[in-house]
Amino acid sequence: MSHLGPLRRGVWAALLRQLLRPPRAVCTRTVGCHSQVAEAVLTSRLKPHQEKPNFILKVPKGTRDLDPQQMVVREKILDEIISCFKRHGAEGLDTPAFELTEMLTEKYEDNFGLMYDLKDQGGELLSLRYDLTVPFARYLAMNKLKKMKRYQVGKVWRRESPTIVQGRYREFCQCDFDIAGEFDPMIPDAECLKVMCEILSGLQLGDFLIKVNDRRVVDGMFAVCGVPESKFRTICTSMDKLDKMSWEDVRHEMVAKKGLAPEVADRIGEYVQCHGGISLVEELSKDPNLSQSQLALQGLADLKLLFEYLTLFGIAEKISFDLSLARGLDYYTGVIYEAVLLQSPGQAGTEALNVGSVAAGGRYDGLVAQFDPKGHNVPCVGLSIGVERIFFLVEQKMKASGKKVRTTETQVFVATPQKNFLRERLKLIAELWDAGIKVWQRWYQSDLGAEMLFKNNPKLLTQLHYCEKTDIPLMVIIGEQEQSEGVIKLRSVASREEVTINRESLVAEIQKRLSDS
Amino acid sequence: MSHLGPLRRGVWAALLRQLLRPPRAVCTRTVGCHSQVAEAVLTSRLKPHQEKPNFILKVPKGTRDLDPQQMVVREKILDEIISCFKRHGAEGLDTPAFELTEMLTEKYEDNFGLMYDLKDQGGELLSLRYDLTVPFARYLAMNKLKKMKRYQVGKVWRRESPTIVQGRYREFCQCDFDIAGEFDPMIPDAECLKVMCEILSGLQLGDFLIKVNDRRVVDGMFAVCGVPESKFRTICTSMDKLDKMSWEDVRHEMVAKKGLAPEVADRIGEYVQCHGGISLVEELSKDPNLSQSQLALQGLADLKLLFEYLTLFGIAEKISFDLSLARGLDYYTGVIYEAVLLQSPGQAGTEALNVGSVAAGGRYDGLVAQFDPKGHNVPCVGLSIGVERIFFLVEQKMKASGKKVRTTETQVFVATPQKNFLRERLKLIAELWDAGIKVWQRWYQSDLGAEMLFKNNPKLLTQLHYCEKTDIPLMVIIGEQEQSEGVIKLRSVASREEVTINRESLVAEIQKRLSDS
Repeated sequence: MSHLGPLRRGVWAALLRQLLRPPRAVCTRTVGCHSQVAEAVLTSRLKPHQEKPNFILKVPKGTRDLDPQQMVVREKILDEIISCFKRHGAEGLDTPAFELTEMLTEKYEDNFGLMYDLKDQGGELLSLRYDLTVPFARYLAMNKLKKMKRYQVGKVWRRESPTIVQGRYREFCQCDFDIAGEFDPMIPDAECLKVMCEILSGLQLGDFLIKVNDRRVVDGMFAVCGVPESKFRTICTSMDKLDKMSWEDVRHEMVAKKGLAPEVADRIGEYVQCHGGISLVEELSKDPNLSQSQLALQGLADLKLLFEYLTLFGIAEKISFDLSLARGLDYYTGVIYEAVLLQSPGQAGTEALNVGSVAAGGRYDGLVAQFDPKGHNVPCVGLSIGVERIFFLVEQKMKASGKKVRTTETQVFVATPQKNFLRERLKLIAELWDAGIKVWQRWYQSDLGAEMLFKNNPKLLTQLHYCEKTDIPLMVIIGEQEQSEGVIKLRSVASREEVTINRESLVAEIQKRLSDS
Repeated sequence: MSHLGPLRRGVWAALLRQLLRPPRAVCTRTVGCHSQVAEAVLTSRLKPHQEKPNFILKVPKGTRDLDPQQMVVREKILDEIISCFKRHGAEGLDTPAFELTEMLTEKYEDNFGLMYDLKDQGGELLSLRYDLTVPFARYLAMNKLKKMKRYQVGKVWRRESPTIVQGRYREFCQCDFDIAGEFDPMIPDAECLKVMCEILSGLQLGDFLIKVNDRRVVDGMFAVCGVPESKFRTICTSMDKLDKMSWEDVRHEMVAKKGLAPEVADRIGEYVQCHGGISLVEELSKDPNLSQSQLALQGLADLKLLFEYLTLFGIAEKISFDLSLARGLDYYTGVIYEAVLLQSPGQAGTEALNVGSVAAGGRYDGLVAQFDPKGHNVPCVGLSIGVERIFFLVEQKMKASGKKVRTTETQVFVATPQKNFLRERLKLIAELWDAGIKVWQRWYQSDLGAEMLFKNNPKLLTQLHYCEKTDIPLMVIIGEQEQSEGVIKLRSVASREEVTINRESLVAEIQKRLSDS
């Protein structure tokens, strides 16, 4: 009736706007199914009396909802990651989803992707954050912090062409760990690599390898190969595509698109094939060409020290010094790294599961100074875990195994076989919930969850089925007889065993059963 | 050298853009300190050779960073809330930060605040979500779900004038719990109120009261008072301001701004003073005027049933039927509620701490149909916890008490009194981290965190001070003598007691100490 009035008006107004809008604008929203959209628009024009929404029901391109099943998996992954960050003494931080646009511009190589800008609605010009690194540097400068070991988990947004099948999205979650401060060389850098190893081992994604290089080695290599300094960053961006493209294609881009001399490209081509351990570091330190570059030698000396520390950490065999690694982001100045999975877990040989790098990072010693009003600097090194890709793999693995995870944590269900027993159920479930609060306040995460059906007179079979479907382990049954005798039936859903216990000892008995299991 | 080149170019480009921009555009970004900005712009124009950023280092208006201290408090609050949601059997859900603009328009009363739109960069027109309710309704319709009990925690964005001192922000976190589905009347509604009570009790914010009303009672009251139906929603919005404005001011808005007849406003004025318990519900059911409205009678009948269930849940004394409650959002159709704190915790009488409602919600039976292509409906009822305001109160309380919380969870610090002992420290700390992984995989959240200083040769005193400053309880000390004897010193930072133990039993000993404490 009347209270639906404004809602209907809302739908009408939307409908009118839709009809007045030129069809082109509608079509652009759904590239790939023009004819279908055109038809939908036509239909709604023919039937303007219909009070149904005529927009396409979808989430924005490159984004998705996470349903309860996915949320459970996501939570487990994040728990593992955050637990590792905390184990390494990191503090938490949160920054706004958007920053002043001018804070973000010039921090990322042009062709790396596009930022989402907010519409100018009066006031400041804003953009959604593109990563968690630049906001962290802004935070350090703003608060004049000279050192900090922090982690941050949050969404970032990039207007790249999404290839959703490979686990890439325009909205995605990043988990970052960074160490800011002036320290003795390579100690924090080594810890970052240790953190990456611990997380990738802990998540049990199968074998992995972390490629390591140094921006100074990359730049030194460019210099001795004859790349003009003005082309360093753009050639670096091309090189960064080596994990997705062949050297032939990358070389073509360097020469044809970026105007690099073919012989310079070929010299680079020889270096980028090199990968190995500490012996390659030592070998390249003596390379007659590369050793011409002081910058490259500095990088190689640091890499040598890094490998020494990684050996002490017991993870050297997971690390490969790889001259093809470039990292597309503009702000790196020293060691850079990227973790790749060597084989999809449980599905060897399937190309479809190649998800590229699952974690990456590096040293960025110049970024904070770009924000500091006095140009003061704070050297930083850090890493970012690509949760979406890991999530994609774990989800695939679960689908393959046919396993389903519980999406709720309810331990007890309140049931009755009797009609007109809603009030008794309500009283009983409130007792359980209230006991749950107390449990939770005493021991972390040892909760007591309870559910019942929202029906005045549900059938007992319906209640049993609900427990089986949702894997609730215990059932509390109250009926007339129990009520009059001051007892309650406690039933194990799996074994179907029932015991009758005193009403007063119900909570204690449930807690005993749950802690035993 | 060369690797800094592009960074410098970046700063230069930003500087040039800044100089080319008309000064007005710069000033609008910082309302309130024009002269300062103008001076800054002038300074950078006079000294274009400086390579420092010349923008104002700040977060966007109405947003903030959360530092590690705040993150710990935030995490505790969210834990308590999420734990309660899970205790009630809710499943998790996540939706994108932005939606297609057309999904959000017409869902909120015009003057409730403004949405953040994204710039049209080609493709779909998008807006940041304004709450978590509309995305939930969109999710239900899109997936054709007929029932769901879900919780969602996430940021939402509203371009309201921020009054930061009262804990209001343009970016803020919401914690929502909703029950969707066709059920027997008032059972899910009562559970929502129970959830609100449990959370507010659990958070120990002091005494609170939940005001309850019903949109049908509001609309029925409007009808019998003589409000024209076309003015229902806008008068409702005025009424919603009664928690911030006096009745005189609200009446003035209704009459002068919204053209309501003064005698109609006065009739409303008599009703909005009514508040009480179930007896008021019964009294109003017999009110000769209000009982003229079938809609109001339906609402009152449901409220009576609701109070009955709330009594069984043991929370009736926390609930007040209050005819002044209107709730500004357009989509409510039945019961509505709002929780207010009766007194600031520990700071009675201080007006500054009045933070308004800390939780609110209601029934919205028509929203899903607005998204469903066939107009199918799913009745919903839910609530939203205002985390920012709660956070503000807890923070104030902590500041007043002078208490500081630990921002890290490190339990062990690896130290040495000796020079040239970095390598031994690295080996030792890796052992502890690796043990931590295993601990974590066995028992949830029983982690073993370890830290050390990133210096080749730190002084022992510096290491001791670090532990004291960061409240790390245990210290593991390794020196030449310990190394040669295969032992290690374990020191309690608080008691300064030291014991020497075998190196092999170190991890077991630490775990024992941590589980004992």
